[in-house]
Amino acid sequence: MWPHLLPRWPAWLFRAAPGWWQQGHPHVPVRTVCAPGATVEQRRRPGGPWGVQGASPLAHRGCSSASSHPDDVPLTTERYPVQRLPFAVVSEEDLAAFELILPGRVVTGAEELAAVNVDWLRTMRGRSKVLLKPRTTEEVSRILRYCHERNLAVTPQGGNTGMVGGSVPVFDEIVLSTSLMNQVVHFHSVSGVLVCQAGCVLEDLSQYLEDRDFIMPLDLGSKGSCHIGGNVATNAGGLRVLRYGSLHGTVLGLEVVLADGTILNCLTSLRKDNTGYDLKQLFIGSEGTLGVITAVSILCPPKPKAVNVAFLGCPGFTEVLQTFSSCKGMLGEILSAFEFMDAECMRLVGQHLSLTCPVRESLFYVLVETSGSSAEHDSVKLDAFLEHALGCGLVTAGTVATDQRKMKMLWALRERITEALSRDGYVYKYDISLPVERLYDLVTDLRTRLGPSAKTVVGYGHLGDGNLHLNVTAEAFSPQLLGALEPHVYEWTAAQRGSVSAEHGLGFRKRDALGYSKPPAAVRLMRGLKALLDPKGILNPYKTLPSRA
Amino acid sequence: MWPHLLPRWPAWLFRAAPGWWQQGHPHVPVRTVCAPGATVEQRRRPGGPWGVQGASPLAHRGCSSASSHPDDVPLTTERYPVQRLPFAVVSEEDLAAFELILPGRVVTGAEELAAVNVDWLRTMRGRSKVLLKPRTTEEVSRILRYCHERNLAVTPQGGNTGMVGGSVPVFDEIVLSTSLMNQVVHFHSVSGVLVCQAGCVLEDLSQYLEDRDFIMPLDLGSKGSCHIGGNVATNAGGLRVLRYGSLHGTVLGLEVVLADGTILNCLTSLRKDNTGYDLKQLFIGSEGTLGVITAVSILCPPKPKAVNVAFLGCPGFTEVLQTFSSCKGMLGEILSAFEFMDAECMRLVGQHLSLTCPVRESLFYVLVETSGSSAEHDSVKLDAFLEHALGCGLVTAGTVATDQRKMKMLWALRERITEALSRDGYVYKYDISLPVERLYDLVTDLRTRLGPSAKTVVGYGHLGDGNLHLNVTAEAFSPQLLGALEPHVYEWTAAQRGSVSAEHGLGFRKRDALGYSKPPAAVRLMRGLKALLDPKGILNPYKTLPSRA
Repeated sequence: MWPHLLPRWPAWLFRAAPGWWQQGHPHVPVRTVCAPGATVEQRRRPGGPWGVQGASPLAHRGCSSASSHPDDVPLTTERYPVQRLPFAVVSEEDLAAFELILPGRVVTGAEELAAVNVDWLRTMRGRSKVLLKPRTTEEVSRILRYCHERNLAVTPQGGNTGMVGGSVPVFDEIVLSTSLMNQVVHFHSVSGVLVCQAGCVLEDLSQYLEDRDFIMPLDLGSKGSCHIGGNVATNAGGLRVLRYGSLHGTVLGLEVVLADGTILNCLTSLRKDNTGYDLKQLFIGSEGTLGVITAVSILCPPKPKAVNVAFLGCPGFTEVLQTFSSCKGMLGEILSAFEFMDAECMRLVGQHLSLTCPVRESLFYVLVETSGSSAEHDSVKLDAFLEHALGCGLVTAGTVATDQRKMKMLWALRERITEALSRDGYVYKYDISLPVERLYDLVTDLRTRLGPSAKTVVGYGHLGDGNLHLNVTAEAFSPQLLGALEPHVYEWTAAQRGSVSAEHGLGFRKRDALGYSKPPAAVRLMRGLKALLDPKGILNPYKTLPSRA
Repeated sequence: MWPHLLPRWPAWLFRAAPGWWQQGHPHVPVRTVCAPGATVEQRRRPGGPWGVQGASPLAHRGCSSASSHPDDVPLTTERYPVQRLPFAVVSEEDLAAFELILPGRVVTGAEELAAVNVDWLRTMRGRSKVLLKPRTTEEVSRILRYCHERNLAVTPQGGNTGMVGGSVPVFDEIVLSTSLMNQVVHFHSVSGVLVCQAGCVLEDLSQYLEDRDFIMPLDLGSKGSCHIGGNVATNAGGLRVLRYGSLHGTVLGLEVVLADGTILNCLTSLRKDNTGYDLKQLFIGSEGTLGVITAVSILCPPKPKAVNVAFLGCPGFTEVLQTFSSCKGMLGEILSAFEFMDAECMRLVGQHLSLTCPVRESLFYVLVETSGSSAEHDSVKLDAFLEHALGCGLVTAGTVATDQRKMKMLWALRERITEALSRDGYVYKYDISLPVERLYDLVTDLRTRLGPSAKTVVGYGHLGDGNLHLNVTAEAFSPQLLGALEPHVYEWTAAQRGSVSAEHGLGFRKRDALGYSKPPAAVRLMRGLKALLDPKGILNPYKTLPSRA
C-alpha cells in the first residue's frame, strides 16, 4: 500500500491534477506500491544504481536475475573469442597444498562451484575447479605466493555482483573468495574511521555504523550482497557520490596482497598522509588485476539527523536539468542525491514488479534526497525549492517522504529498475558518463536508430554525477542488435569526451572499449603497471586490460 | 583596528569577563589587529596552515621568510651529505637547443636564477644555471624529450612555496617553471568543473571562480603565490580538507608530461570514469618525481551563501577535543573548518606581527568556520552550538564574525603563525598526522625534553584533520637541538601509527623519514614506480624517495 504519502507543501502548488493527491484524506491509502508478497522491511532491492557491484538480494539468496540453473548459462569461452593463457592447471598436489594452508576451506563441490563460476547477470560462465576461502591476510599471502610460484591464475571474488564479468573466471582460474574475511577490525567514534576486512558485506557495515550514529560514504542497490573489498577494487559509485565523493577520497588506507604474496600494509587511519606516493590509489578501481585487497580503512560521515526524499515529475529533460540546477542552488549542502528515470523505466517497474507511480504520469521523474542536521531547516529549504520548481513549471507533480518506510518505497522505484529490466528480456547494458546537457540525447538517438529491433530503450541514472545508465532490451541476444549498438554507443560517447564506463568498470566485457575513453599512452602505462605488479599476469587475467596489444 | 566585532549571541553566555566585549557599544573599536602598514585588503598572508605549499605574499613579491640575500643561504650540498648523480651538465649546445624550443624564455641571468635556486624557508639552495619557462604542454614535452635523451636532470617548479625543499634544485638541475602556463582553459558553470594550466596561481583561480559563484575546493595560506600544478603535485591539504576532502577526490583529470616527453592526457572533466586504472592518482602527491603536471581538471563547489567564523578560547586541550565533537554533531554539514592554536602561538603573532587576541586569554584557541546556503539557518545552528559550548565550560570566551573583513582578521591569527615563527628564529618544522586524542601530547613532551635549549615550542593546526603543525624555534640552527628532535619526533609519531608528513610531503628534507610511516614493501613499490615512469631518474632527483637503498 502507499499510505499517508502526501505532500507537505501547500496544496495550491500542485497545479497538475491536484485532486490526485487526495488532499484532506491523509488516512486514505493512495496507491499500492509494493510488489505482491514483498515487504518494505526487505533488504533494499537492486534497481537502477547498482554501483559497480549491482547484485540483488536475490543473488544474496542464491538466485539471480534469470531463473535458470547456472549451468544453463553459455560458457564465456563459447560466446567470446578468447584464448587461454599458458597458466598451469590445478593438480591434486596443488589441492593438497591449499588444504594445508586452508584446512576445510578448499571447495571442489560442483554446486558451490557452479554459483561462483557464473556472474549475477548470467551472461558469463567460467569453469573453475576450486574455490578457496581464506580468513586472514596471511592465508591470502600464502595462497598467492604458492600460485605465483606455480604459475596458477587466480580470480578474486567478493559478492560477485559486478555488471561486466570482472568477478568470475573465464577459464579455470582459481576463485579466491573474501566471503570469510568479514570482521570489523576497529571503529573510531570520534574520527569516524572504520577499519574492516575486505569481505564485509556493505549492508552489514551500514547497519554496524548506523547503530553508532554514522553511515557508510557509499550506498549501492547491491548492498545486501556486495563486499567492501569488491566495492573498493571496482571503485564503486552508487547513490552517495554526489554528497560524499568517490572512494578515491573516502578510502584512507588499504591492505593489499600482491601477486607474489607480498603483503602491502597501507592500512593507515589518517585523514592526511603525504609520505610518498599514495599507493593505495593504484588498487582502487583496478578490479583485482594488481593485487587482492584484504582490508579497508574508510572515513564514514555522521548519520544525518534528518532525511527527506522528494519524488517529482518533470515535463521534459530540459526541465530535469533546470530542476537539478535549482536543487544545487537552493538545497546546497543538504542535497545528497539527485537521480532521474524516464517514463519507460516507470512503465517497466510497473509492468514487471507491480510498483505504482506515486505521482501524475510524466515524461521524466527525479528523486531528490536531502540529508542534514536539522529537520526544521531542511524542510524549510526543501519547501522553498519545491515552491520554486512547481511555480515555474520545472516540476508538475511530486510527493515528499520523511519516514524510513515511505522513503524506501520511493527509492525502490529508482533502485529496482535493473531488476525490472532483467525481467523484460535480454539486456544490453551501458553505463556512461556524459556532459549533463547531452545525457539523454543518446537515448533518443538509439530509439530512432534501433526502431522495432529493440523491445525497450531506457535511460536513467545518477544525473548529479553525469552518469547515464542506458539499457536496451530484446526478446533474446542478437548479434545484429549488438552490431547496431556497438561500436555506435562507444563512438557517440567518445565524441562527447565521455566515459564508456562511468562506474561499472571494464571487467571482461568492456575491456576492449577502453580505447574509446583512454589514449594509447594511458593504455601503455596501464600495461606497464600490470607488468610491474603482476609480472606473470596471474591476477584476474582477461580483465581490465584490452585483449589486443 | 578591530571594529564591530561583537558577539551575536546573548551576553549572559559570556561567563568569562563579559565586560571585555564592550557590549552595548557596537561602534566602539575594540582592538587594533592589523600589523602597522598592513591592510585587510592585502592578499591573505601565510600563517599556520600553509598546506603543502606554504609561501607568502612576501615571497610573491620576491622577498621571503628571512630578509637576507638568497646567496647568503648555505648551499644544500654544504649542509647535507648528498652526492651528485651522474647526469650530464648543461652545455652551450643544450642552451641553444632550449632557445629553439622556447625563444626568449631560456633564463640564465644571475638574479632570476638566485630566486629560483632558494626555497621560501631559505634553508636550501641549489646552483642551477638555467631556468626554462614553457607556455604550452607541447613545449614541456619537447624539453623533457630533449633532457631525457641528453640525461639532463630537471626540477619542476611552481610557486616555489614548499616547506620541505621539494621545489628547488639540489645541484645544477634545470629549473622548469610553470609560471607562464597560467591560462584557464574552461569552466563549466553547471557542473562546476574547472580546467586550467598548471601554472595558474591559486588565488587567481579563487577570484575567477568567486566571480562565477563558485570556490576552489582548497585554500592555503600561500594562495597568493602557489600554483595549482604544484598544489596537485604535492597533494596540498590546507584549510578546506575537512569540508571538501583531499585532491585525490576533487581532481577529476590531469595532463602530465612523462620523463621521456610523452604527453599523458587524462584531462577528463567527468565526475565518474572507471575505464581502467586511475592513472592521474599516481601523480597527485608525487612531488614532480614521476611526471610534470601541465593541466588540471578540478571539481569546484558552489560558493556558500553564508559564512561565519567563530574564534573561541578553551581552557585545556581536552576541552578543544570536546568542542570539536560538539561542533561536528551540532553544525553537521555546515562545518567547514576547525583549526586550533595554543597560547604560545598567540603570543608569537602578538610579539612579531602586532596582532592582538580578540578574546580573553586562554590556554588554547579554536577557529570554527561554517559555510552554508542559509544565513539564518547557519546562525541558528552556530548559536545553539555556542550556547552549549559556553554553557558547559568547553569554551570560556569567544567572538563571531560574518563580514569578510572581520573574518579575514580572525583567520589572520591562525594563518600568520608560520610568519611569526620565522621571525622568532631558526625554525624546526614538523607536520604530523596523529590520532586526535594524542595530538597535543607531543608538544608537551617536547617542552619537557628540550627545556631551555629551545626558544619556543608551539602546536597548532588542522585539528579537524588530525594534523598537528609542531614547530620549535631557537636563536640559530644547532645540530645538538636537531639531534634532540630527530629521530625522537619521528619515533614518537610512528609509535602512534601517525604520519611524519601529513601535508607538507617529503621533498628533500623529509625523504629519509619515509620509513617511519611506510613499510619496506611500500618503499620498494615506490622505487618500482619511479623506475617504470622515469627510468633515468631525471625528474626531481634527490626528492621523495629515500637516499638509502
